[in-house]
Amino acid sequence: MDLQDQFDGFTARDWQTIEEGGPVRFAVIGLGWWTRDEAIPAIQQADLCETTVAVSSTTAKAESVAESVETIDHALTYDEFHDGAAREAYNAVYVATPNSKHLEYVDTAAGFGKDVLCEKPMEATLERAEAVVEACRDRDVTLMVAYRMQTEPAVRWARNLVQTGFIGDPVHVHSHLSQRLLEMIPNPDQWRLDPDLTGYGTSVMDLGPYPVNTTRFILDEDPIRVTAQAGSTGEAFDDVPDETAAFVLTYPNNCFAACTVSQNAVQSSRLSIVGLEGELTIEPAFFPHHPRKVTVARSGTTASYEVEMVDQMLEEFEYFADCVLSGRSPVPDGPHGVTDMRIMKAIYDSAESNEPIQL
Amino acid sequence: MDLQDQFDGFTARDWQTIEEGGPVRFAVIGLGWWTRDEAIPAIQQADLCETTVAVSSTTAKAESVAESVETIDHALTYDEFHDGAAREAYNAVYVATPNSKHLEYVDTAAGFGKDVLCEKPMEATLERAEAVVEACRDRDVTLMVAYRMQTEPAVRWARNLVQTGFIGDPVHVHSHLSQRLLEMIPNPDQWRLDPDLTGYGTSVMDLGPYPVNTTRFILDEDPIRVTAQAGSTGEAFDDVPDETAAFVLTYPNNCFAACTVSQNAVQSSRLSIVGLEGELTIEPAFFPHHPRKVTVARSGTTASYEVEMVDQMLEEFEYFADCVLSGRSPVPDGPHGVTDMRIMKAIYDSAESNEPIQL
Repeated sequence: MDLQDQFDGFTARDWQTIEEGGPVRFAVIGLGWWTRDEAIPAIQQADLCETTVAVSSTTAKAESVAESVETIDHALTYDEFHDGAAREAYNAVYVATPNSKHLEYVDTAAGFGKDVLCEKPMEATLERAEAVVEACRDRDVTLMVAYRMQTEPAVRWARNLVQTGFIGDPVHVHSHLSQRLLEMIPNPDQWRLDPDLTGYGTSVMDLGPYPVNTTRFILDEDPIRVTAQAGSTGEAFDDVPDETAAFVLTYPNNCFAACTVSQNAVQSSRLSIVGLEGELTIEPAFFPHHPRKVTVARSGTTASYEVEMVDQMLEEFEYFADCVLSGRSPVPDGPHGVTDMRIMKAIYDSAESNEPIQL
Repeated sequence: MDLQDQFDGFTARDWQTIEEGGPVRFAVIGLGWWTRDEAIPAIQQADLCETTVAVSSTTAKAESVAESVETIDHALTYDEFHDGAAREAYNAVYVATPNSKHLEYVDTAAGFGKDVLCEKPMEATLERAEAVVEACRDRDVTLMVAYRMQTEPAVRWARNLVQTGFIGDPVHVHSHLSQRLLEMIPNPDQWRLDPDLTGYGTSVMDLGPYPVNTTRFILDEDPIRVTAQAGSTGEAFDDVPDETAAFVLTYPNNCFAACTVSQNAVQSSRLSIVGLEGELTIEPAFFPHHPRKVTVARSGTTASYEVEMVDQMLEEFEYFADCVLSGRSPVPDGPHGVTDMRIMKAIYDSAESNEPIQL
């Protein structure tokens, strides 16, 4: 196995075309814990990005964030943002509101000619996700969906191994992601459990994009068929169909991806691919601050690689900026994100109708 | 985690009641590679068992095995066996013929009052498996299905951990088993690819019992619902629907087991269970001569245990003999095996009909 050479020679930022430039100045919209603790600190470290505007429900909330970040000069309410306040102070928006609010901020930002980095899932429904794409297409602004796994070196290396045939034709994928949402955010009335804000449900909408999109990215294929099962038993999950869910995505050539997600199980994540000639596992796979181990086996030999941990949000923001500044389209673009929304809708539809859904 | 004590104190043969006795004298029926290389050598090592009769399609084939094993005094053809030849020379039969032949040998053996250890799957169809159970029940002989994982110490330890609540309520199971059948047995006309001999198909019938039965055993629950997908693309798999298959078994309380099997993918096996409080993985899980590693995680701590490798067939035969000699019924008895057959039939039915099957 001359894999060590391949691993050593692997360039994490194989997408990088620009080392200095910009910066792309961001208005960050929605100041939940993810924006405050992950997105803004990542942008602070970035060479090509800067946060200049904070947008939230109240001036007080926006100001509390603005005060703690030197580069932020404008603290806006959502209404002020829609009215065009400080619109010269930013070139792009990072939309991290509850799912069903994405469209309105994307639409306003695109109307101002701003590029858009939109959190996953793109919106609460497939139709609204399509409207997100249209809003950006009509105004000719860049739209990227915030899939942090696509710029994660472990995932890019795995993709490279699969695409160069190291494990042979993929036959089976297993992927799992779970966490205990109510321990992380001890509030049964949170938006991720409210269908008006989250959309079709919680586990598939919030966690599903990781196994679904990462598998699509690594296989470089889209699934053609879905069967799914979902269920909720805990009281806090009364309004959503999927406290827990399992789904099988059929890829071309009878490659089956068996996936499970749950907002109410121990924190755990894994992605493994079994091929005709070998297999590959990333574990832990999806949590941002876990060191990633990639295990590769072929011809009776198994090798494990600890992949150097990166700040995934930093990589994601730098990639977005690199695309914007070099005038090229990012890979997880709008139509790419709509495909995930279509798959997730199909998962819910299949779980409800008890029928396979063709994609 | 006081798991080390629990692990160190774990008694592999917690089922043992008899250290000397018998021996239970076996007629082994069907002399394929598994019987010759795995079953007979295991019986030779057993304290409570002995092989005294070899039964095959021809006298020559039976004699060639009889000559190499000191304790075998009788080499019979299938017809001679049915006619009752040497029936005083054995107390029990081990049936390891192609699936669709199990019933006739079980029926004859039970008619002679012999106890039966029958290979998995029990028969080619659910109806014939039910007939196997009836044949043994009517003659009041012991029937055990040869699930070697149920006496595997790693599996019994995992079961103990799950049953004592170490990982909390199980939420998701992932299990996978694959091998390259045509590299192991380079003959496209082999019985495992012939529906007249194998039954409903190949991957689910031959490999499916490992994820299906081992999960049932560890959870101590039976699934209530199945959805499945299967497909064949390779020419050698033209006559069977499942060169590869994926299925989700729903257990009570929305615990979903996502399983994949393939007779045409790299040799690989895994079983993992994610619970509310922790998780447990056995990998490799199902091949007889792989050292088994059990990894257990809870409260942010992960521990791995290399479980001492046992001869799984020796454990299985000794357990069967222990049950027979002590006059108790084995745990994987006839009705237990029929449940697996019902699940496997449901997997094929669901894959064909595109509908979930209630169990």
